[in-house]
Amino acid sequence: MATEPQKSDAGDEGREHHPRLELDEAIHQPVRLSIMSILAQSKKVDFAFLRDYLELGDSNLSRHLTGLESIGYIVIDKVFEGKRPRTWVSLSPKGREAFNNHVRLLRQIVEHPIDNLKY
Amino acid sequence: MATEPQKSDAGDEGREHHPRLELDEAIHQPVRLSIMSILAQSKKVDFAFLRDYLELGDSNLSRHLTGLESIGYIVIDKVFEGKRPRTWVSLSPKGREAFNNHVRLLRQIVEHPIDNLKY
Repeated sequence: MATEPQKSDAGDEGREHHPRLELDEAIHQPVRLSIMSILAQSKKVDFAFLRDYLELGDSNLSRHLTGLESIGYIVIDKVFEGKRPRTWVSLSPKGREAFNNHVRLLRQIVEHPIDNLKY
Repeated sequence: MATEPQKSDAGDEGREHHPRLELDEAIHQPVRLSIMSILAQSKKVDFAFLRDYLELGDSNLSRHLTGLESIGYIVIDKVFEGKRPRTWVSLSPKGREAFNNHVRLLRQIVEHPIDNLKY
């Protein structure tokens, strides 16, 4: 990087824009990223588990979950198990795709910060 | 995750708080993370290279660099090479430590989202 970057048309395939521009703002925020990571590894997760494990308050977690549900990334399922209310949270296929894509971009930024030079 | 989390004192070592709480807000933002990644891989980087490669305007990049400089994460060196002004940017040891730690935490969140269960 100690030389002046030169524009070049060669080796341009595979990179139109810097990967940071494709990061998904809806899941980059640390709490959101943590929620999505846990859901990506689980079939379904209990609200109380997420709340306790992520060290969040009820309302804070609810707000994030509602946000993720509104863009179709997660599915929230409120059920009764016996007399007990339970809220299950799971990743939608769209959410899984968004998460996997986000992680791929993060890896690209962090592990190969100046790969695919277009200059 | 389909079972109720149980509190336990066993296996508690190595995790006091969820890793998201230790993420460094100063470098999580996508532009900041991208700048730090590039600097971590280079001895020094030219301002113009960062600007063009990250697809930023001069003032936007300047603002981020000033922010990173103010917390001691980077060093900005304005020099003349011949008659030409040049701005070199490099990572400080403190910045390198912060970046490495941030990446370690991101990996922990993304790759092992429910490791080190404290419940």
